[in-house]
Amino acid sequence: MLNIEKIEKAAEVLQEVIRPTFLIRSHKINPESKLYIKPENLQVTGSFKVRGAYYKISQLSDEEKSRGVIACSAGNHAQGVALGASKNGIKSLICLPDSAPISKVEATKGYGADVCLVPGAYDDAYQRALELKEKHGYTFVHPFNDEDVIAGQGTIGLEIMKELPDADVVLVPVGGGGLISGVAFAVKSINPNCKVYGVQAEGAPSMAKSVHDGKIETLDRVVTFADGIAVKTPGTLTYEMCKNYVDDIVTVTDDEVAAAVLALIDYQRLVAEGAGAVSVAAAMFNKVDVKGKKVVCIVSGGNIDVTILSRVINRGLIKTGRSTDITLELADKPGQLTDVSKIISEKGANVVSIYHDRTELDTEINGCYLRLRLETRNYEHVEEIKYALAKAGYKIVE
Amino acid sequence: MLNIEKIEKAAEVLQEVIRPTFLIRSHKINPESKLYIKPENLQVTGSFKVRGAYYKISQLSDEEKSRGVIACSAGNHAQGVALGASKNGIKSLICLPDSAPISKVEATKGYGADVCLVPGAYDDAYQRALELKEKHGYTFVHPFNDEDVIAGQGTIGLEIMKELPDADVVLVPVGGGGLISGVAFAVKSINPNCKVYGVQAEGAPSMAKSVHDGKIETLDRVVTFADGIAVKTPGTLTYEMCKNYVDDIVTVTDDEVAAAVLALIDYQRLVAEGAGAVSVAAAMFNKVDVKGKKVVCIVSGGNIDVTILSRVINRGLIKTGRSTDITLELADKPGQLTDVSKIISEKGANVVSIYHDRTELDTEINGCYLRLRLETRNYEHVEEIKYALAKAGYKIVE
Repeated sequence: MLNIEKIEKAAEVLQEVIRPTFLIRSHKINPESKLYIKPENLQVTGSFKVRGAYYKISQLSDEEKSRGVIACSAGNHAQGVALGASKNGIKSLICLPDSAPISKVEATKGYGADVCLVPGAYDDAYQRALELKEKHGYTFVHPFNDEDVIAGQGTIGLEIMKELPDADVVLVPVGGGGLISGVAFAVKSINPNCKVYGVQAEGAPSMAKSVHDGKIETLDRVVTFADGIAVKTPGTLTYEMCKNYVDDIVTVTDDEVAAAVLALIDYQRLVAEGAGAVSVAAAMFNKVDVKGKKVVCIVSGGNIDVTILSRVINRGLIKTGRSTDITLELADKPGQLTDVSKIISEKGANVVSIYHDRTELDTEINGCYLRLRLETRNYEHVEEIKYALAKAGYKIVE
Repeated sequence: MLNIEKIEKAAEVLQEVIRPTFLIRSHKINPESKLYIKPENLQVTGSFKVRGAYYKISQLSDEEKSRGVIACSAGNHAQGVALGASKNGIKSLICLPDSAPISKVEATKGYGADVCLVPGAYDDAYQRALELKEKHGYTFVHPFNDEDVIAGQGTIGLEIMKELPDADVVLVPVGGGGLISGVAFAVKSINPNCKVYGVQAEGAPSMAKSVHDGKIETLDRVVTFADGIAVKTPGTLTYEMCKNYVDDIVTVTDDEVAAAVLALIDYQRLVAEGAGAVSVAAAMFNKVDVKGKKVVCIVSGGNIDVTILSRVINRGLIKTGRSTDITLELADKPGQLTDVSKIISEKGANVVSIYHDRTELDTEINGCYLRLRLETRNYEHVEEIKYALAKAGYKIVE
């Protein structure tokens, strides 16, 4: 049975491997609350997962250690187990689906694991890991449904309570529920008045649904760019702990998560993955009552592919009026492009790209479309530019 | 005269305002060295500048304080002075060129300063600040050429020596030279064997040129996206200190800086501005001897506009083979687009955009160009796709 002493013991054991992550006060993410970030994206391996994995592995018997560990993951858990095993001086084998990004495979190898690439998806890799465990007697390290793993993740709760004992609210990303189980247990043990809320992606609300329905639910499909928390079924142990210690579980949309990722870059100079930023999204968009309160958002990880990050930023720029697409219908006569360029530059916007085509069918025969992508300052700036173009006689296609 | 006691005193004074920034070990930026990041991009206001500004202001007499301070800056110094003044309970007036990004103006106001927007460029704002200082008796807070400011920045050197007393190399971004003067003085006082190198942008090498020529040089123009260190003339005081305490000053190209910004995102989940990442660029591209050495890169700031960041990421993706433009010359017959799409998807790449035009003049009359932007894994992946396309009979236009 989990108790606070066990989490305290885990904290002691973890000292030798984890990096301290101190709370960062953020003034801009939700100015109506007193908001703090717990930056586990800066943790070794780029996520909190190393805490649970390392502690679990450290508690194995010598006999178990000698046989090595196995895990299945396409993401942060893989790196956590790999590092946890190497630091404990034992062998690890990680099964990954062969569709996993090369960067994750390389990182897992880099922390000293043997990697087994399994054709297919996550479930195929999981089956293979179970087979290999049976065959070779490895210890299986579950990503969340394990008391030692939960105790390791719970050390984050201890650290938060040590730095900010009078926190009113702690917001925690939830996938399988390992992180929030440990954090809620630790926080409630120390300060029962502090609310602990879980946050899931709207497209993968397995724990939210289970807790609200009063029984474990399995989703048919999960759809979110926050892949680190896209879990179809909560754990049995984590479900019980969420029911007992968590105040509520709320959801956020992918667009809200993207806005949170952008806000963390813009205001805090921190890179978070989608799953890591759902807590921040919940605070930004007032999914729970944070007004006037001391709020801690656990940013659980930062392992986002740069390609995805680039897409998130570009979408965020458009959503906040800092990048704008404008289409004009031009009469096809000389000098119009020069004139339009002049108006735009006078208004202080930059042209990113231009697409100019006279052959489209849906314009008048002597007309054409001019599509512009502009760097702008904000929505007012966009309106100002549109007004200037309209005033000069250009027709803006909405 | 600067001495180590003064820097120690500054460290004590600064405790009440700055956030501790602990060294972060990075394994991937230059695997041949033992490299650490000093993340001043996570500092309050997003840069180290608050250290010098706050300490300078704290040392003013009551009479000086009552008259308030004035500064001129379009960037990090403005925010440092604004916060430094508010925390000391005194008034500040910051002159900014009216071309300064709205975000910086808002941030400066947000820290409690009055802002005076001056039409024109930085030099115009500087002149106006001097006039206002004369007229109203404000104290001018220089961004670098001031002993108290230098003592404040020097606290970073103390912190590095406390955490890593046997560091072999410290790499420091250099604009006007305030940061490196303080850091070099502190580091050399504690460990004279530790090398301290300055890093400038190739397009703004004012201190490098001055130190190499043995006299202060003024550049006609500065061209770099690392705008935080684009300084035309070094300070007199900082020039002398660089001559006496700095081992050498090297330069990096804008492309190297962009690669460093991307590496910090990718490997460390940290957002740095160009000026803040020049130290990392110098270590990545072996501008000084770091092999086998304990190296500290000061990442001095993170205030980069998201629009610029997006451009840096996109350029970095292309440079590392994760985004690729391919142009094919097609015979204009049905089914070719389907066929090409199929080959690309079989190879596991994503199509970002397609441009298909039959009317270009430089193709054969019955031919056309197909321009593709793809998300790819790396250069080998790009070559694999090109090979498959060529094998299927498509002509790739280089």
